Amino acid sequence: MAFPARVKIVEVGPRDGLQNEQQPVPASVKIELIDRLSDAGLPVIESGSFVSPKWVPQMAGSAEVMAGIRRKQGVSYPVLVPNMKGLEGALAAGVEEIAIFGAVTESFSQRNINCSIAESLDRFRPVAERALAEGLRVRGYLSCVLGCPYEGEVAPDVVAGLAADLMAMGCYEVSLGDTIGVGTPGKAAALVERVAHEVPMDRLAVHFHDTYGQALANIYAALDLGVAVLDSSVAGLGGCPYAKGASGNVATEDVVYMLNGLGIETGVDLDALVDAALFISQALGRPPSSRVTCAISGKRAA
Amino acid sequence: MAFPARVKIVEVGPRDGLQNEQQPVPASVKIELIDRLSDAGLPVIESGSFVSPKWVPQMAGSAEVMAGIRRKQGVSYPVLVPNMKGLEGALAAGVEEIAIFGAVTESFSQRNINCSIAESLDRFRPVAERALAEGLRVRGYLSCVLGCPYEGEVAPDVVAGLAADLMAMGCYEVSLGDTIGVGTPGKAAALVERVAHEVPMDRLAVHFHDTYGQALANIYAALDLGVAVLDSSVAGLGGCPYAKGASGNVATEDVVYMLNGLGIETGVDLDALVDAALFISQALGRPPSSRVTCAISGKRAA
Repeated sequence: MAFPARVKIVEVGPRDGLQNEQQPVPASVKIELIDRLSDAGLPVIESGSFVSPKWVPQMAGSAEVMAGIRRKQGVSYPVLVPNMKGLEGALAAGVEEIAIFGAVTESFSQRNINCSIAESLDRFRPVAERALAEGLRVRGYLSCVLGCPYEGEVAPDVVAGLAADLMAMGCYEVSLGDTIGVGTPGKAAALVERVAHEVPMDRLAVHFHDTYGQALANIYAALDLGVAVLDSSVAGLGGCPYAKGASGNVATEDVVYMLNGLGIETGVDLDALVDAALFISQALGRPPSSRVTCAISGKRAA
Repeated sequence: MAFPARVKIVEVGPRDGLQNEQQPVPASVKIELIDRLSDAGLPVIESGSFVSPKWVPQMAGSAEVMAGIRRKQGVSYPVLVPNMKGLEGALAAGVEEIAIFGAVTESFSQRNINCSIAESLDRFRPVAERALAEGLRVRGYLSCVLGCPYEGEVAPDVVAGLAADLMAMGCYEVSLGDTIGVGTPGKAAALVERVAHEVPMDRLAVHFHDTYGQALANIYAALDLGVAVLDSSVAGLGGCPYAKGASGNVATEDVVYMLNGLGIETGVDLDALVDAALFISQALGRPPSSRVTCAISGKRAA
């Protein structure tokens, strides 16, 4: 057992979660959500995306969000940046951390960011270089690491090679995303072990979706290997776009509950986090996709 | 890693699940559900309960259910039996396996079966003896093994002692139930390790609830110790009576999906199981509480 004593949670709800909403969420709601999350103790909160509003209208207000949040000392508020134009927008908004995002299969890369994998790396390289020169931190994302909706299973070698490429560009951390949530703990562990040959374990994050209910088991398997950075989404925001009615990101509340039980420190106040989950669920007019928040709010009501 | 090559799934939906329904479910629906589950390959299907209909009206039709199901070669259809009167009913219904059930805290024992733990053991002993003499198999259940709604945390020593008591009565297997779903994988593993000092690992089953979303992670931790019998409930039937709106038993579909991914054999056909889950969910008029069934039915619809 190599369980870390402390885990860093990267909260992705305000971006990865709300990006999947049919109706764009007003900037004021996003701002309150982000401030509630930082007050609950989340150390990293993905807050927006500087992509073309033509492609992702849900993220159109990211500059307004960045201007409106109460930036807390020691908390990072990364935004997604797909290209140099996005970086300009992020810099103008006073962003201190960006994330670049690529896929590990050609089909997903083409459909998601409209270019080949090689082209995406060529596009990211100068963005990362410029961001680093401006003093920003750069995080890397890889999607579909445990399966692709178009190509099926993915070889861990491919993921490991691309993770190394992102690190070579100056990313301080690479997040491995099981975008369609098909992974199970044995495969998740095998992937982490393989990627850890290329990227130091303390630079590796895992990003699981709960589409098939496997996220916490996958996280447990990853923790057991020493992974200490977990992406998750308050209230489980972010339904899976590839399976209607299915759930998306693992809920931060469920992750924190498990880590609390394992005696692993996160610095997150679970009650305040549940309040944030109930706030955004109410704003969206639907129940939270978090077992913990449902159970705790049920107990509160009783 | 000591993962078992094959796992036996004990399907508890028709009893433990449907017992929690406000509206009793007609025997005909239960019969179709049970037959669908045996056709899907489940080797053990808890099918009813011979308790007083005054206490549990949902189980009043258990004799009718036992008479109506298509008993498949090699499949066991246990029923719950609280006392000698229940055993008479079970014998009259031609039951071949019974389950006796006790709690590990005095408060829960009093409120659930209206007697102290010692009294419950005294009551089970002659029931088990008579059942064995009649050629029946006897399974033992312990509830609240990872926490009690009235007393909080529970000492693994207490659980281990009571599990040993049930084995001494002639139970062929003891199932450890986290009735309120509060357990996390570290605590679940510690409990299994402690109980395994008293009960051989191949006689130990775990019965997790997904109230806080922890069930699959707990199961993964238990598998890692060699546990090879898992209780679960089709469609996640059986909401938690202690937290309104919260989910109950872990869904069999989610368990089978994880085991398939781990390369562990179950003999269960996931597609047929999903069909059974959709059948009972439709009969109950609500969506299944299984991430896998939601994801697969979403994909089927697309």
